[in-house]
Amino acid sequence: MYELFYWPSIQGRGEFVRLALEEAAAPYVDVARERGAVAVQGMLRGKGLRPFAPPVLVAGDLVLWQTAAILQWLAPRHGLVPEDERSRIAAHAIQLTISDIVAEIHDTHHPISTGLYYEDQREEAARKAHHFTAERLPKYLEWLERSVDDETFTYVDLSIFQLLEGLSYAFPRATAGLEIPRLQRIRDAVRKRPNIAAYLASPRRIPFNEQGIFRRYTELDVG
Amino acid sequence: MYELFYWPSIQGRGEFVRLALEEAAAPYVDVARERGAVAVQGMLRGKGLRPFAPPVLVAGDLVLWQTAAILQWLAPRHGLVPEDERSRIAAHAIQLTISDIVAEIHDTHHPISTGLYYEDQREEAARKAHHFTAERLPKYLEWLERSVDDETFTYVDLSIFQLLEGLSYAFPRATAGLEIPRLQRIRDAVRKRPNIAAYLASPRRIPFNEQGIFRRYTELDVG
Repeated sequence: MYELFYWPSIQGRGEFVRLALEEAAAPYVDVARERGAVAVQGMLRGKGLRPFAPPVLVAGDLVLWQTAAILQWLAPRHGLVPEDERSRIAAHAIQLTISDIVAEIHDTHHPISTGLYYEDQREEAARKAHHFTAERLPKYLEWLERSVDDETFTYVDLSIFQLLEGLSYAFPRATAGLEIPRLQRIRDAVRKRPNIAAYLASPRRIPFNEQGIFRRYTELDVG
Repeated sequence: MYELFYWPSIQGRGEFVRLALEEAAAPYVDVARERGAVAVQGMLRGKGLRPFAPPVLVAGDLVLWQTAAILQWLAPRHGLVPEDERSRIAAHAIQLTISDIVAEIHDTHHPISTGLYYEDQREEAARKAHHFTAERLPKYLEWLERSVDDETFTYVDLSIFQLLEGLSYAFPRATAGLEIPRLQRIRDAVRKRPNIAAYLASPRRIPFNEQGIFRRYTELDVG
């Protein structure tokens, strides 16, 4: 039985781990959804090596953190990545680049500080989002379109699904113009996988909202 | 013989890999220092899976990229991390968090876009740097001080050395006030390791400059 520690009211970075656990039908407890955010805070406190931030996955006596590292560890144990070293190296490097994309998406609404409200950095956010949607987003997604293999299912596909779902929520206008047929096929195929479809229809899937990474601030979706 | 592909005129993210290769006395060619930046651009172009960005390490027929992933692969092959799974998981997660710190440091001088000059985002940079030095830097380094083990040498120590060297260059005032004795001991011990000392004294070590991640813009070192 795995224990996942992540904020209970947002998808956030935890969602990339939730999707892998759900696809694998792995037994897990989403701890803070039962005990509240205080469970996450408790995990981060204490002496010795503690994770800097959630998501955290506890697997027996191992404590895993950093989203891409959790997925790298989980995937071979649940058939979510091929056996060969080359495939695993590629999957981890692509997943880490997805983490970079996610960080930039977060920074479109928090370009100055995570310690300030969006309302206190709106002007900078508008400027950042303009450059993100005009330059970075096309660059990243065109690279991803060229880079991924849509023949072999891996955990990276789950993250591509989540990335595109989030972008369609937060930046529908900027995302609509991109030519990414292979990524769209991956997204559609993931949505139809039985375990994922069941998860998305369940109350375990938290809706997107304006406390997470992907936020629908129409003034930032400048295309 | 490894081939490292990284920009030839800056330390940048490539320096974390250079330090590991130098400590290991691993045979490598720093390709772009012989053939110019065009060698890096060539590595990123072409069909199929290409790295999104350097550093890239070519090891036989494997192509490794994303700094922390390169180090995770290199370290066990060169005695730079203990054998046990727990140590390796911890090292990778800490290294990924150092990557996050490095990204935030970069963003202090480029908070709006990597496609703009610093001079075109100075106002936002000043505001971002204020929050970075006042909140994020202490939070990160105090966490790192509590988290690292200064008894067993690993590749993470090399990155801590580089992080503190860079911070002392870019943010001497903000960094001076932090209570991080354990990190300072690690930094001093790394500087004295024979292979590292020889590297630092060689022309292979590129000096810090204002094209890299760590830039000495005194107006940003607001403490």
